[in-house]
Amino acid sequence: MQPTQRRLANAIRALAMDAVETANSGHPGMPMGMADAATALFTRHLKYDPADPHWPDRDRFVLSAGHGSMLIYALLYLTGYARPTLDDIKRFRQLHSPCAGHPENFELAGVEATTGPLGQGLAMAVGMAIAERHLNAIYGDELVDHRTFVLASDGDLMEGVNHEAVGLAGHLKLGRLIVLWDDNRITIDGSVDLSRNEDVMARYAAGGWHTAECDGLDAGKVERALDEAIADERPSLIRCRTVIGYGAPNKQGTAATHGAALGRQEVEAARKELGLEPEEFTVPDDVLAAWREAGRRGAVQRAEWHHRLDASKAKDEFLERLAGKADDKWLKPYLEELIAKPPTIATRKASEMALEAINAEIPATIGGSADLTGSNNTKTKAQEALTADNYAGRYIYYGIREFGMAAAMNGMALHGGVIPYGGTFLIFSDYCRPAIRLSALQNARVIYVMTHDSIGLGEDGPTHQPIEHLQSLRAMPQLELFRPADAVETAECWAAALASEGPSVLALTRQNLSPVRTKAAKENLSARGAYRLRKAAAARKAILIATGSEVEIALDVAERLESQGIGADVVSMPCTERFDAQDPDYREDILPDVSNREILRVSIEAGATFGWERYTGLHGLRIGIDRFGASAPAADLYQHFGLTPDAIAPRVVELLQKRDML
Amino acid sequence: MQPTQRRLANAIRALAMDAVETANSGHPGMPMGMADAATALFTRHLKYDPADPHWPDRDRFVLSAGHGSMLIYALLYLTGYARPTLDDIKRFRQLHSPCAGHPENFELAGVEATTGPLGQGLAMAVGMAIAERHLNAIYGDELVDHRTFVLASDGDLMEGVNHEAVGLAGHLKLGRLIVLWDDNRITIDGSVDLSRNEDVMARYAAGGWHTAECDGLDAGKVERALDEAIADERPSLIRCRTVIGYGAPNKQGTAATHGAALGRQEVEAARKELGLEPEEFTVPDDVLAAWREAGRRGAVQRAEWHHRLDASKAKDEFLERLAGKADDKWLKPYLEELIAKPPTIATRKASEMALEAINAEIPATIGGSADLTGSNNTKTKAQEALTADNYAGRYIYYGIREFGMAAAMNGMALHGGVIPYGGTFLIFSDYCRPAIRLSALQNARVIYVMTHDSIGLGEDGPTHQPIEHLQSLRAMPQLELFRPADAVETAECWAAALASEGPSVLALTRQNLSPVRTKAAKENLSARGAYRLRKAAAARKAILIATGSEVEIALDVAERLESQGIGADVVSMPCTERFDAQDPDYREDILPDVSNREILRVSIEAGATFGWERYTGLHGLRIGIDRFGASAPAADLYQHFGLTPDAIAPRVVELLQKRDML
Repeated sequence: MQPTQRRLANAIRALAMDAVETANSGHPGMPMGMADAATALFTRHLKYDPADPHWPDRDRFVLSAGHGSMLIYALLYLTGYARPTLDDIKRFRQLHSPCAGHPENFELAGVEATTGPLGQGLAMAVGMAIAERHLNAIYGDELVDHRTFVLASDGDLMEGVNHEAVGLAGHLKLGRLIVLWDDNRITIDGSVDLSRNEDVMARYAAGGWHTAECDGLDAGKVERALDEAIADERPSLIRCRTVIGYGAPNKQGTAATHGAALGRQEVEAARKELGLEPEEFTVPDDVLAAWREAGRRGAVQRAEWHHRLDASKAKDEFLERLAGKADDKWLKPYLEELIAKPPTIATRKASEMALEAINAEIPATIGGSADLTGSNNTKTKAQEALTADNYAGRYIYYGIREFGMAAAMNGMALHGGVIPYGGTFLIFSDYCRPAIRLSALQNARVIYVMTHDSIGLGEDGPTHQPIEHLQSLRAMPQLELFRPADAVETAECWAAALASEGPSVLALTRQNLSPVRTKAAKENLSARGAYRLRKAAAARKAILIATGSEVEIALDVAERLESQGIGADVVSMPCTERFDAQDPDYREDILPDVSNREILRVSIEAGATFGWERYTGLHGLRIGIDRFGASAPAADLYQHFGLTPDAIAPRVVELLQKRDML
Repeated sequence: MQPTQRRLANAIRALAMDAVETANSGHPGMPMGMADAATALFTRHLKYDPADPHWPDRDRFVLSAGHGSMLIYALLYLTGYARPTLDDIKRFRQLHSPCAGHPENFELAGVEATTGPLGQGLAMAVGMAIAERHLNAIYGDELVDHRTFVLASDGDLMEGVNHEAVGLAGHLKLGRLIVLWDDNRITIDGSVDLSRNEDVMARYAAGGWHTAECDGLDAGKVERALDEAIADERPSLIRCRTVIGYGAPNKQGTAATHGAALGRQEVEAARKELGLEPEEFTVPDDVLAAWREAGRRGAVQRAEWHHRLDASKAKDEFLERLAGKADDKWLKPYLEELIAKPPTIATRKASEMALEAINAEIPATIGGSADLTGSNNTKTKAQEALTADNYAGRYIYYGIREFGMAAAMNGMALHGGVIPYGGTFLIFSDYCRPAIRLSALQNARVIYVMTHDSIGLGEDGPTHQPIEHLQSLRAMPQLELFRPADAVETAECWAAALASEGPSVLALTRQNLSPVRTKAAKENLSARGAYRLRKAAAARKAILIATGSEVEIALDVAERLESQGIGADVVSMPCTERFDAQDPDYREDILPDVSNREILRVSIEAGATFGWERYTGLHGLRIGIDRFGASAPAADLYQHFGLTPDAIAPRVVELLQKRDML
């Protein structure tokens, strides 16, 4: 006799309970509450094959409520993925176990996204659903025909980014996105009534979503709700009424089951209540066999899909796109054009020009902006809008939803087959920051086009002028920030970002810049992070290090120094992280490790000086802005904040004199 | 004859148009579209007196759509505030004009909040409305009886934080909060249909709000909608159907009027269309007189209020609270207790203990947490919840709304009379970051209680472990970050934060720490930012600089060095910003500016090393974590990342040997 769905679900409960108990840390409540709903999804609806977790046409499942990580670990083990093993699960939350506290896609195939920071799993799923429809529009149902399922908690729904995700999905009519809401009425602080009295269903309906509800503890009812959701053309929210920690007789329905082990005694009581095996980490043979059979459901579909792929004319192209190939054939001829006729333009404009070449060459790019298209210069001429009526479009009007845009781009990058880039003002990197961090942690190739990157934006004033943003993004691991100085560097930085496996931020100016690179180079100099742009003519007394819009200022300062017989190198440093990664000889050549009393190192950047000690040393000179900006025309501000050759050159000379270096 | 409301409104249009034209920069569209609605509000409903912009019982008006700053500048001038003058307006968006690109409360009385970063004005208004109800519950209608009005754009409503603000206001039934929505159907990218197809009214209704709609170009109809909203007990959203740039005959209703000057020709055409004076910056005498009369409406109410205040027994206490007084009488006896019996506890627990003393002493504090009350230890025993049924409560369950919490706290601090503090995990400072920046820019005394401040949180793993957060917050101007090392330092840091005029972040541990301060001190040492905790016994070869949980590690390392005859100072540095602000002699005493070949400086902090060069110099040693964390018990992680005395002491010795310093 086939075990009941409830018995299958109880295997999840048992593993979740035992793993948390063994670790004495974790969140048993959610997996125990949503075990039946997850069983419904993974045994009936979800299209996947544990034998090939990367099968491109699999359905995506995102556990937005990442704290309930044992749910996905249990599901992957039960359905027959190679990892986690039962031993991995026994080492839940221990060093080097792939079963981390929150699910990490870089630890386990089958985990589609790294979740835990609430709201973002669902918002990333929106991006996956966009990527699916886009690729479907290009390659057809034959190759791309899958759904994105999400399991979300009250926390996911309460976070601000949920509003942005709901709005975006509703607007784009992403009917293949289905969210299972774990409506257990409990948050960490206690009853959800402590902080919420919203009609969640009405809110989703207001956003153009289909909504349904069911008893989340009855797998059969969840299956019917899933059928209904799949049949509906709109994105769907399924309210699963559940009981947190279901099965723990004394603690279920309370916040006590949310984020702590149940305790030995309660675990034993739950074992009895649920009719589980007496030993921990034990799944009855018939139950495991039924789960494994469910896990084999997708094998036939996958085989059929491979037949279709083999028969498809688009096979090579499709596989190349999924492999993430991004040609840089566009770069050389484009650079030649720029060198032939160096333009005086803003780097945001230079970025647009580079994008014209890139988008023509690389079909996988999908651009967009959080309602600043004309300011971020993110849209190229041939790009059509990606809309509910035209999923083949390659430009997304994300609306005033910076965080939602960034999270969606993460989802698109994780889905694969597309290379997302999106724009906003650099100041609003703060709004995207939680998603930028997940780009970095997941090593997702998302390219952030952040324009208006300093006081150089002028009149909009301090609310819009980044000061600390460059440094605070550079402090983030696994993220590269590029701040190019002219059109040539902008093209080089774009090429570096596209060639990278991880995320990049391009910090670009609003204001026009003079060209600083007017000769052909043998390599992508910006990809080195920093390079000598100008070599001292007279005996070298100073090295001026600058980024972006301040490079032309540094060149001017150098000229003035040389006119007084003071030799000065100028180092352009578009990417500090890249420079730090160069070999010691290269770094020593560019920035020799000598005393500032021998060669004075000067940094010039229109932002916080905090951190520039890394390149200037303590006794170098750091020119920047360590307070908030002001509202005025850009030129006035540069003068006001002392960021002009007139102001800087004398400071350098004075310091050299003071130190008897002249 | 009294001029019509439309003529009054047209004075706003004229000034907005002319100022933007003169600056050749700015946003004429919103002020021109919402001029009639603003006229209705400022001539009939809003309670204010330009003669005393700080009158405590005034209504608050928040221009959430801050890009339309000329609207509030025009209103302040027309109603008779001392500033801006017409000359100020003529210098719109120029250096040193108080009429900045976006409204700044530190530039102009009458501007209640600094806005521009979308969504936050409305979210701050929620905090103002909370503060009003709270103070009303304590001091009664006699002293506190005002409303909070907001003008919001589509952008404000599309931002994620709007969902959090709507949820919070609906939950707390803030009936005195009224939002005028400028429904002009235009965003920067074009028609709002490009990115939104939400039923906004239904969403607000789902959040427990009253909704109304009206022709926003008809002041009379706006007045009736305002009457209706004031009568309703729920927070209200009034949908004002408007035309962006109304009055500019060829451009109105298009995105072209949003963020750029109309152009000389179109301005002239608008002048004719609207029947304005031919000269720029000119308001007809009768119109100005009518505006000034409207501005005098509140004088009687203010006089009556002062009579009530003078008659009130609570007068002194009320005025003291509004002056922001925060006694530190609690500190001394509490420190004595700690010194007498130094506890081994987490600093989050130490914070709770300090708060017990603080909340008993200072009635103005209002605590809260974004659904992590038991983890942040933000609630003290006597605190009742602030709810719709009990506005006198002093603890807010903010729900899973970090950004909304932070913005609301800004609003509370700006309102005055309360001192807000609120908790979340330090990792989620990213979610709050746009609001933290506005705390800093506005110099608002908000205290962020950010716990679980490093890999020391353990098993939750890299999604929850701050790495770059300490440094990226330190990079922000006008913000102080405190990372105390034990219970004594935690109390000192709380005292420093409360005494500050601006915002503070307290970074606190999850894990227990040994006491490092076991002797009474003559002053608040933490308020200095850094101090010598331990003096070298043998000849000083090293200075170990550490913060928070790493201070006890530094002390252990020092002991080990001394046991080998190597003298080592330990400097505890709870607040780098404070230390930077000390006089040079003090700084030189703590961290002498000598070569690292003479005295090696070592920083130890469980976070990014980026930026620590400022204190160690280039050739110092920086112990930290420059990659993402991992999921494991805290002790295992400290070992894994080399943050133990066992790992650090040999590194120091080795470096000293290598440099022939021993």
